[in-house]
Amino acid sequence: MTALGHHTLLDFYECEPNRLKRSREIKAILCAAVRAGGGRIVKAVFHNFSPYGVTGVVVITESHVAIHTWPEHRYAAVDIFSCSAKLDHAAIRGYLNRALLAKRTSRRRFRRGVLRKPSLIPSTGPDRS
Amino acid sequence: MTALGHHTLLDFYECEPNRLKRSREIKAILCAAVRAGGGRIVKAVFHNFSPYGVTGVVVITESHVAIHTWPEHRYAAVDIFSCSAKLDHAAIRGYLNRALLAKRTSRRRFRRGVLRKPSLIPSTGPDRS
Repeated sequence: MTALGHHTLLDFYECEPNRLKRSREIKAILCAAVRAGGGRIVKAVFHNFSPYGVTGVVVITESHVAIHTWPEHRYAAVDIFSCSAKLDHAAIRGYLNRALLAKRTSRRRFRRGVLRKPSLIPSTGPDRS
Repeated sequence: MTALGHHTLLDFYECEPNRLKRSREIKAILCAAVRAGGGRIVKAVFHNFSPYGVTGVVVITESHVAIHTWPEHRYAAVDIFSCSAKLDHAAIRGYLNRALLAKRTSRRRFRRGVLRKPSLIPSTGPDRS
């Protein structure tokens, strides 16, 4: 059965806390990671929490990549959702691992939208990417 | 061990396709669902794909809620990430189930950021929400 999308959940532990504090830096890192994976950015939204910690989401033609950081715990949560096989999740993970200086990473990957049978509505749309 | 966040993956199948086509309508539905769950919206970004299908992300103080729709397959993928126990994931799911007229829904829930031991950096920040 075909999956319409793939979703990767990444947990980056024991990161360099100074890499996790400022939205400008996190935005630069995440956008660079997305491009390293071949993603095409539509829009990026980043938000600073008080006193520290960042939430960011990059909407891409392949779907989205999100990050949430806890500098006080040296932890960052990332998720990558793509509807195209062209987006390289592993390349994004590798880039973030190096940029955040994480000492430990966990990864979980899921198929999204597994159709039981072909849709009765013919798919006439182009590939979303 | 405490988890810093909770992440719910929702798959809505056999939806009413006309509910999945336009970003304006999807944005209204998702924002209302977030509010039904007690979430506070920071910013919302929605994007139409050609010829149909929507990607949307709502950044909330509790983290994010994202949706991707495939009207031609009557399917929508949603994920809810929260760093606070205050956000009601079940209420968001219920709202979306009714609004999208889904006949079948699957749910998977994960803990994010499970720390092995208390961080050496004291957490002085306020609750993120």
